[in-house]
Amino acid sequence: MTRRVVVVGGGAAGMSAASAARRTDPDAVITVLEGGPFPSYGVCGIPYFLSGVVERGEDLIAYPVEEFIVRRRIDLRLGSAAVRVDLVGRMVTTTVGEELAFDSLVLASGAEAVVPDLPGVEDPRVVTVRRLDDAIALRSRLDGVRRAVVVGAGYVGLEMAEALCERGIEVTVVDRLPRVLTTVDESIAAIAEEETRRHCEVRLGAGLVALRPSASGVMVVLEDGELEADLVVLALGVRPDTSLVPELASLPNGALVVDDHMRTSHEAVWAAGDCVALHHRVLQAPAYVPLGPAANKAGRVAGVGAAGGDATFPGIVGTAVVKIFDLTVAHTGLTLTEAQGAGLAAEATEITAKSRAKYYPGAEPLRVRLVHTPEGRLLGAQLAGREGAAQRVDVVAAALHAGMGVDDLADLDLAYAPPFSPVYDPLTQAAQAAQFARAKVASR
Amino acid sequence: MTRRVVVVGGGAAGMSAASAARRTDPDAVITVLEGGPFPSYGVCGIPYFLSGVVERGEDLIAYPVEEFIVRRRIDLRLGSAAVRVDLVGRMVTTTVGEELAFDSLVLASGAEAVVPDLPGVEDPRVVTVRRLDDAIALRSRLDGVRRAVVVGAGYVGLEMAEALCERGIEVTVVDRLPRVLTTVDESIAAIAEEETRRHCEVRLGAGLVALRPSASGVMVVLEDGELEADLVVLALGVRPDTSLVPELASLPNGALVVDDHMRTSHEAVWAAGDCVALHHRVLQAPAYVPLGPAANKAGRVAGVGAAGGDATFPGIVGTAVVKIFDLTVAHTGLTLTEAQGAGLAAEATEITAKSRAKYYPGAEPLRVRLVHTPEGRLLGAQLAGREGAAQRVDVVAAALHAGMGVDDLADLDLAYAPPFSPVYDPLTQAAQAAQFARAKVASR
Repeated sequence: MTRRVVVVGGGAAGMSAASAARRTDPDAVITVLEGGPFPSYGVCGIPYFLSGVVERGEDLIAYPVEEFIVRRRIDLRLGSAAVRVDLVGRMVTTTVGEELAFDSLVLASGAEAVVPDLPGVEDPRVVTVRRLDDAIALRSRLDGVRRAVVVGAGYVGLEMAEALCERGIEVTVVDRLPRVLTTVDESIAAIAEEETRRHCEVRLGAGLVALRPSASGVMVVLEDGELEADLVVLALGVRPDTSLVPELASLPNGALVVDDHMRTSHEAVWAAGDCVALHHRVLQAPAYVPLGPAANKAGRVAGVGAAGGDATFPGIVGTAVVKIFDLTVAHTGLTLTEAQGAGLAAEATEITAKSRAKYYPGAEPLRVRLVHTPEGRLLGAQLAGREGAAQRVDVVAAALHAGMGVDDLADLDLAYAPPFSPVYDPLTQAAQAAQFARAKVASR
Repeated sequence: MTRRVVVVGGGAAGMSAASAARRTDPDAVITVLEGGPFPSYGVCGIPYFLSGVVERGEDLIAYPVEEFIVRRRIDLRLGSAAVRVDLVGRMVTTTVGEELAFDSLVLASGAEAVVPDLPGVEDPRVVTVRRLDDAIALRSRLDGVRRAVVVGAGYVGLEMAEALCERGIEVTVVDRLPRVLTTVDESIAAIAEEETRRHCEVRLGAGLVALRPSASGVMVVLEDGELEADLVVLALGVRPDTSLVPELASLPNGALVVDDHMRTSHEAVWAAGDCVALHHRVLQAPAYVPLGPAANKAGRVAGVGAAGGDATFPGIVGTAVVKIFDLTVAHTGLTLTEAQGAGLAAEATEITAKSRAKYYPGAEPLRVRLVHTPEGRLLGAQLAGREGAAQRVDVVAAALHAGMGVDDLADLDLAYAPPFSPVYDPLTQAAQAAQFARAKVASR
């Protein structure tokens, strides 16, 4: 009997799942329901499209629709979303009223931008930037924007601040917390804040209270005052879009809990992408870290499973990198706050090294923070600098994947040439500093 | 009784050893014999000093002499080399006729540039660039040089070609082999060759036969013709300088064989730096890979041991990186040639990826070659591209250190943002390609 696979959501995870399902079962009928007008595009590229660094919205689309429909024989239905999922009857109802029976279901419904329930958020000048169609509409309006407020100083907020500054817009970033970038510890966040302040206003510890039309734009009402703007970008994080399947096991925020085959608590339902929690190898628990690489990889695993194959997802260690103006901030594993929150006896060692041999021109300071236990178990790393942070964090990601300790990190045989690193790599220096701190405690 | 530690050689390994010995035994008498005028400088920086990228020769010196003599209380004797080592009597004789008794000896005598026994090599316009004092003398002469020949297309030869080109000198690189850069496989070397040819002449398969004075310079006589030059740089590799201790166990090239404490076959003698073979974790055998980071680290280990402490060197995986004009070439582990030479059933998978998201401006092609067994054991990697090669190779170095396979490499949670990598990192793409090749063979 022909297997019927229905995929809810045509983003990176959904299209990866559908494609993997096709490779696994050449005869399956594979249907993808995608409410928007585009399949699988690079959500992470949206700030660069808005800034103009990327010229056309279509540039963010990975493959033309024909690739999926013709070559991969996927019944991709753009503009058609799932509105009801009947897990008992194994049936999905779409916005156009169609009912699709499935043998296997892949939920790749993604996440939606958090919009606070405050007066005035419905103003058309108050936007979120989660979807490409919204971004295309927004970009056409940016020429008329002189002042913008970005609400939320997380990594998307800071990327958006950069994008709008690039367009010559006067930007103020506000956040209710007294700091930016909660994905890293405060000392690293301070570097990101300083870099942001070189380019735009930053107003911290100032929660959004309301929005209202003003004489020439929108008045952003904060706990400690008001700001007038032509555009307000809400960058308050995302929430897994799993309202169609409340009966499935999930974390408190709604992220679906899956096994290592990306199968949910229902035997016929797999899930991947920004709607799921992933196994975090350092935490040894599910964690909600909605990022592109894992969405693609886990999508493939879910698609293989949904089509009767056998694939497993190895888990994540929570690696991410963000460009903030001329600064790169990268992290992997747990922050000190996260580690302590997870009940681990953790501490941090932080150093500043140079990105190149000190005598080689262009050497920039690179801040490296290692999070580890007093016994030397490696828990995470954070890096910030103008160069050399992005791939260096991946070395620690590999170390975390392998369960290495601080000693192992110090032992790694890392590449050296004067244009690329000091003879003791910044990571080696950081690991040695952590060893040294431990030795001092031991000898007390 | 006060321990007497004598260190032969005041380069990176020797000064690291002396400093570590001081930390280990605050009371020891530590003497370093260094024939040259400078302690521990960045040999790898010499091409950049010659090119003018680094302004002053002193910039390459890591620490002022006072740091060693006053703060670390090391009896550093510049201009005084060891001329005889009596292992039975435990005595070193110096060039100035002094006899130094030792309880522990650290050999950090380094390596010397290979100079072929050919007519004319003694011409003062024929030079090697292994020592800072030679480089300082050479740089003062470079203004008068119009045409130079670099003999040897290894990484030092190519760095020297770049350095001389930077000074506006017309450069020809010659090598007796039909290819450049034998530290990587041919397909990667071809990229380096192409980049070199964009800037200077490259004449391969043309061995050096002789050198003789010409009307206006030196005539470089090759197997297939002649070349006139004002300067000839010999970059034919190095040879461990271990002639003082022929009785110690060594590899056929003279590199000393040591245990994991960097102790030689004599119980009172440790060694580190370019005169030793190091434990290669992939080969599981000693290998001669004379590079800076391991010299520093192994120097410390030797110094700790020589001063009565206990430290071990974890071994290397053979990681290196070189800038060749606008190209970066990096490698770790074994090349296919090396792996097959070691009797391993090895194969290679090679891909070209982009260094950034394909829609992000400035994305450059990055070539990634993985060497692995048919069963998926990872043996090595080589990368070449205009950006993103240098630290990415370190991820594979970490993977090799941990004994990861191709599957593990594909599973790593690597950082992604459009300015830094595609959503599937080049390393992930390469690992997936290797998995795919294996799956195809398995399904035949």
